[in-house]
This record gives sequence, structure tokens and C-alpha cells, in this order.
Amino acid sequence: MASSYHKMGLHAITPDRIISSGMLTKEYLYLKVPDGMVAYLGTEGSAHYIESLGLHPIPINEVNESNMDKIKALLFLDDEGFDWKDGLNKAINLMRKRTIPAIVANTDHAYPVTIHDLSVAVGGLAMMVENIVGKKFIRFGKPDSQMFMFAYDLIRDHRPISKKEIVMVGDTLQTDILGGNKFGLDTVLVLSGNTLPKDVDTRVTASGIVPTYICDSAVVQPEMF
Amino acid sequence: MASSYHKMGLHAITPDRIISSGMLTKEYLYLKVPDGMVAYLGTEGSAHYIESLGLHPIPINEVNESNMDKIKALLFLDDEGFDWKDGLNKAINLMRKRTIPAIVANTDHAYPVTIHDLSVAVGGLAMMVENIVGKKFIRFGKPDSQMFMFAYDLIRDHRPISKKEIVMVGDTLQTDILGGNKFGLDTVLVLSGNTLPKDVDTRVTASGIVPTYICDSAVVQPEMF
Amino acid sequence: MASSYHKMGLHAITPDRIISSGMLTKEYLYLKVPDGMVAYLGTEGSAHYIESLGLHPIPINEVNESNMDKIKALLFLDDEGFDWKDGLNKAINLMRKRTIPAIVANTDHAYPVTIHDLSVAVGGLAMMVENIVGKKFIRFGKPDSQMFMFAYDLIRDHRPISKKEIVMVGDTLQTDILGGNKFGLDTVLVLSGNTLPKDVDTRVTASGIVPTYICDSAVVQPEMF
Amino acid sequence: MASSYHKMGLHAITPDRIISSGMLTKEYLYLKVPDGMVAYLGTEGSAHYIESLGLHPIPINEVNESNMDKIKALLFLDDEGFDWKDGLNKAINLMRKRTIPAIVANTDHAYPVTIHDLSVAVGGLAMMVENIVGKKFIRFGKPDSQMFMFAYDLIRDHRPISKKEIVMVGDTLQTDILGGNKFGLDTVLVLSGNTLPKDVDTRVTASGIVPTYICDSAVVQPEMF
Repeated sequence: MASSYHKMGLHAITPDRIISSGMLTKEYLYLKVPDGMVAYLGTEGSAHYIESLGLHPIPINEVNESNMDKIKALLFLDDEGFDWKDGLNKAINLMRKRTIPAIVANTDHAYPVTIHDLSVAVGGLAMMVENIVGKKFIRFGKPDSQMFMFAYDLIRDHRPISKKEIVMVGDTLQTDILGGNKFGLDTVLVLSGNTLPKDVDTRVTASGIVPTYICDSAVVQPEMF
Repeated sequence: MASSYHKMGLHAITPDRIISSGMLTKEYLYLKVPDGMVAYLGTEGSAHYIESLGLHPIPINEVNESNMDKIKALLFLDDEGFDWKDGLNKAINLMRKRTIPAIVANTDHAYPVTIHDLSVAVGGLAMMVENIVGKKFIRFGKPDSQMFMFAYDLIRDHRPISKKEIVMVGDTLQTDILGGNKFGLDTVLVLSGNTLPKDVDTRVTASGIVPTYICDSAVVQPEMF
Repeated sequence: MASSYHKMGLHAITPDRIISSGMLTKEYLYLKVPDGMVAYLGTEGSAHYIESLGLHPIPINEVNESNMDKIKALLFLDDEGFDWKDGLNKAINLMRKRTIPAIVANTDHAYPVTIHDLSVAVGGLAMMVENIVGKKFIRFGKPDSQMFMFAYDLIRDHRPISKKEIVMVGDTLQTDILGGNKFGLDTVLVLSGNTLPKDVDTRVTASGIVPTYICDSAVVQPEMF
Repeated sequence: MASSYHKMGLHAITPDRIISSGMLTKEYLYLKVPDGMVAYLGTEGSAHYIESLGLHPIPINEVNESNMDKIKALLFLDDEGFDWKDGLNKAINLMRKRTIPAIVANTDHAYPVTIHDLSVAVGGLAMMVENIVGKKFIRFGKPDSQMFMFAYDLIRDHRPISKKEIVMVGDTLQTDILGGNKFGLDTVLVLSGNTLPKDVDTRVTASGIVPTYICDSAVVQPEMF
């Protein structure tokens, strides 16, 4: 992700300054799942950090009667990298038969793939499985405050800072702005594909989610950082 | 479906006595979609009645930019017969771009495939699409009263009958018993895989859905009909 | 209600031609609750038909430990006529302790009291109680097809008619138009306080609920009937 | 609250060691609402901290056309201290007419008043208002991680501590245990009125919320602290 910012000339955005819900998933596994097999929905790449924790990752399509009892957690990581029909049915039966935590490393239900088209995100698939199984899954991502806390803690490791000195910038009312507001930050809504200038008033009024500032575009100079 | 009852020796159950949510979908199309293309998720067999209505069925995986504008309705018929990833993403983008009705011929979110395992039903897939798209889909099936009305009308075509003379028999509280109760019928809960004897008290109390009678098993003599 | 139409000069609308969700509640009680006490939230007037069924109505605020065991059903009839705090807490504890049906004779969560202001409807209060108690309540009203069926049956008592000869006229997409569409009727959305001309396109697109016709105003001549 | 612990002989629990969702509400107001009127549902006592922030508290029943435009936020603090019918209708119309934040200082929908009876909590009332108004309210309380973060920060002000050294003790799966697990803590479910010994296995399996330890009772010696 950092490299895509570098292409835009934003060299101050180094990988260690980007926070993702994967980091919270990793922290959760480190703290709560000491050893054993962890099943996942996603690409092999999305599961790379599981082994570094001393856990044994297993793709959902490889779960079967003989290994099911050894699985300690189920991770929803990515919508790519597995057969949906087989994988979702296996996820449902795994969660019905075993009492293990399911962790969703993405709160979005869909994401844009082109300017016109959406794709179902792994968070949307997880919502369907959760609804059918009737159990409570653990979700990491905005607007949940744990995501903001994680970032806030990282910043405070560098220097003392109060919430009054931070602004949250984002293009989506339901995640970036709602989460930032609740965490006590000033918020800047940047108008983009997710929130178009012509819709912004209607959406703010309808949702009741009010950014402190609204900004026409996210054109920023690298030296601003 | 009638043939499976025949194997059980229940010869009085002829095809014209079986009512399915497909019949309501067919009636809906007859009344509300006079002509044009209808996209569907399901097997070719599940879509057989579309052509008999003078409509042109098109499998969801064949929907594309060039034919999208001709589609008049989207049907969720069956979880088999199409590629889930491609089909569900196409269903989402079709419903986002076009203002057409989506009809779900199945209210279940999952169904048993073996004594131990469930599969996601097309009603579960439709629930995910509906949630992502944010539009209101039309669902046919129990506990909706339209299903009961359809059956009640068919019976009254044969002879006058009052609701006090009918009982609804079923094995699921949330569909059979809830729908029968609401429609004003006496209801019989038959204990089976869906509601086990050891769970029945807890489930009735927790759901607040109370059958008039509870029956240990559905063993019936053909001559009872 | 008929008298308010008479003031508008619509004398063809006689009381026997008006259908309300109260009629379905009355039919439900007649078919499913043969005798005993029935607790209700609402005015004394809203409960008038309970006694005519041979049942004994009791206002929710008079429910207590000594009579609770005799109550056979709980009815949500009206937001007026009882103390909310005491009544809602009593409704919750009654539904937790007893396994009896709760019937909601109104699907709206709120209703307009002036051109600017809403009031919580008894359907909104019932939704809160249902959510806290976790049991399934029985609701009568649009868009549920039972309401349309009841009307359709009444019309057919006078003369044979097909669904293709009936239109549903209403001012609300989520109830009148959705219910009419699902029942297979052509639908007419009349623009009014509930759906303003400036909002109609956005709302149809956002909800996916499409009326067959849209009509600027409901100005009708009595001789039209 | 501290005094009730003192009566039990737990003198180590001083007021500065008790964390409540009111503290998060206070922090939110301090960070996000610099001045003006704040309307509230609750007792005068529950609103005591509003004035100390330089804000002007106004009970919901005193909101009217003339002061409505000056109100900067709506707080749901307590189910006592106001007339429900007038207050809830005023809350709905205030949130429909004004684009201001609504803050709910309690995530519970109901709470026990005796061993047998529940009362609707202000969180239950807020849920009804939120549902009718269709806007997103801000909720503070377990299982939200912000509550755990607030406590964690307070502890770290005294001494460095890792999450592996903390356990979360509580009697409710959906709030204490779910929140503690997600925050990465070991969790102890104490069996009490909220989770009875006979129900614990069923509830853990049904909810999928698994405590690290289950403990028969919360009998603790003061010297344990």
C-alpha cells in the first residue's frame, strides 16, 4: 500500500506509518491464540503473518472432518484466493460444530473495483456466515475505536500528543468520520467517489454523521507532511 | 417432490397438491412483468417456467454491459447452477445500476444436506446481496401469509372450508408454526431434525412461537389422508 | 374514519368499505384465543371489540402478579391511553414470564401529528419490547399480504374479480406500494406529505420499490367511485 | 457506586478506580462540543457534569420551538427523571429537525430491578429513537473497545503493563466477555443472575463468545486486592 502512495509522490508515507485492520488481527492472535491450526478465507499472501506467530495456517477449502477438531480460530481475510461455494459452506459448518472465535479483518461489505462496479468484500461474506450461524464474530476496522486507539498509541510512542491536536481525514461518513468523531477527533470529509459533492448535504443530514470540515479534494503537497 | 412422497407410500400427495414458493414467483411474473429478459441465479431446471410465461430467461453469469439494460427482473431461484463469485458480484452490480424488482423464491438462509451439515440456500445469498445493495427485495415463502393464502385459495376452489377446519403441520417454529399461527390456523409441530425433542421446550419459550399441538413423529398412514 | 372521508365529500366510502389492521387482530383472536383475559396497550376505545369476542380485556397498567397467570395474549393497539413507563415495563415482564402471543395491530413505528411533527406509534413501542424480550411478535398491517388478502376476499364476496383489474393507491413506498406490488397489483403512488415530489425519484431508486404509476395529487371526484 | 462496594468491605475500590460510560460521554463533550445548550433524557443528577464543562444542560421535557435551534447535542443518560411519552416524542422531533450528535451513555437495553423483573434502560429507549429517526447515534459502553482503552490508559498512567497481565472479570457474555476478548485480554465469566450455572454451556456454544475461565462465584476477600 505504501508503494501506491509513493507513486503519487507522497514519500513521507512509509510502510511503518500505515495502519491496517490486519495489525489488530495479528495482535488478537498473538494475545489470544497461543498455538495450533488457524483456518482462513483469503489468498496465501493475506495469511502470511499467521506462521510468524507460530500458528499453522490452513486454507478454508482444505478443512475437513479429519482436521476440523484441531482448528483454534477462523479468519476472514480476503474475498480472493478460495472457491466461494465450497469455502463458505465449510466456514458455516466449521462454526456450527466448533466453539472457536471467528475474526473478520475487514468491516466493509463491498469495495469498488472500477469507477462503476463493486465487488463483495470478505466482510460481506462474513456477515452472511455470521447471520446463518447465529454466533458473534469479532470484527476489526473503522469505525471501531480499537483501530483509532492502535494508531493513537503508535503516535504517542513517538511524542506526547492530545486528541485535540489530531484530525481524522477520510472519504466515507460511516467509517472514517463516524469513527473519528466518536474517538473525539476533529474530522475532515474529503469529497471523492465514496461521497460526491452533489450528495454530501443529503448524506450528512440523513445519517446524522457530521464532519467538522468538508474539503473539496484530497490534493495535498508532500511537503505538507 | 411428489415422487419423494410416493416412495414413502404417500400416494395421495399428487403434484397438484404441493404448493411451492415457485408458484408465487410465477404468479408475480405473470401479473407484474409482461415481457422482456429476466436474469436468474439457479439451475436451468429451476428457471423452466420463465419461458412458458413468454419471458426470456438469462443465467446471471451471462449478464453483461450489452444486455443489462433489457433485464426486467432478477430472480433468486437456487444455490446450484452458477459460479457464486462471478454471479453474486453480477447480481450486486445489476441491482445497483437498474431499478428493477428482485424476487427471492425461498425464505430459508440455509438448508440441511446431510444429518450433520448445512448448505447456504439461495435465500441466504439474496440476504447478502440485499444488505449490500440496500434495496428491498420481494420474498415468497413461509412464514409469509401469501403462501398460506395461495394454499387456502386452492382448497376453497374444491370446497368451502373455514380456517377452523384446517391444521398446519410442520417441523420448524420460525416458518411453519409462526406462519400458520398468524394465518389463524391450529398448528402441529412435528419433532424432527429441525426441532429435536430435547430442545423443543427451550425453543418454544425462547421464541414465543407456540404450536397448538406437539407431535413426537410424523409417522402417518397413507389411509389417514 | 369513514366520517373524515364524508367531510371531504367522499360519500361512497362507507364504514364497511374500510379495512384496518384491527380487523385482522379481531379475526386472529376469534380463531386462536377462545377465552380468558387479554392485556392491551391502548385506549379503552381501541379495545372495544375484545369483549364482543367473549374475552376479558385488561389495560396493561392493571396487570400485576395476581392476574398475570390468567392472561392469554398481549395486544399493542394504540400509543394513547396508558402510562408509557409503567406500561412498557409491565409489557416486558409479562412477555418474559409467560409464553403467550403478542399481537401488534399497527406496523408503523411513528405517525405524523402535525405537518412538522411525528409521534411514536404503538408499532414503534412494540418493536422496542420485542427487541428487549427476544420473542417473535405477530404484526398485522401493510406491506404484509394478509391485509391485501383480507380486502381481496371482501371484494370477491361481492363479485368475481382478478388481480389484474385492481390498483392499489397509496402515499408510502414501504407499505402501500411494496405490499401492492408483492400481491401482484398495479400500484399508484400519490405524492403527499409522506412522499414529496422533489424526493420521489431518489426514494424509488434508493429503495428499489417501483410504483406502476406516479400521480401528482389525490384530488378525486366523488363520482369517480 | 464506590460506597456500595465499601459496604461489601471492598475498601480498595475508591471512586477514582471506577470507570463508567459517563466518563467517555464527558470526554466526548469536552473534545467535540465547545459551548451551548445540551438536551438530555435523565435525572438532574445524571446530568451534573454537563455544567462543569461550561455547557448548559436542558431537560428533554423543556425543549420547545424557541430553544431547539440552540441545542448542540442530545444525551441519553438515564431512564428516570422525565416523562417518557413527552420526552421520547421530543427526542424524535429534535433529532429529525436538527443535525446534531446524539450520545448514549449506556449500551444496555434493559436492566434488572428485582430478582424477577427488568426495566427498560435508557439504551433501549435510545435504540427505539435511533430506529425511528434513521440516524446513527454514538454509544459508549461495553463491549465497545473505547471503554477498555479508557481503563487501560488509566492503569498505564500508574505503571507500565501489558495486556497479557490483565484479566477482565464480568458476569455477562455479550458485554464483559466479548469486549474483553476482542481487546485481547484473558476473560473470567463469573456466574451470577445474568449467567446462571445451568445455562452457561448452552449460552457459550450458542453465542460463540468463549471466556478463558469460568468461575462459580465472585466471592473475593478484600485482601486479594
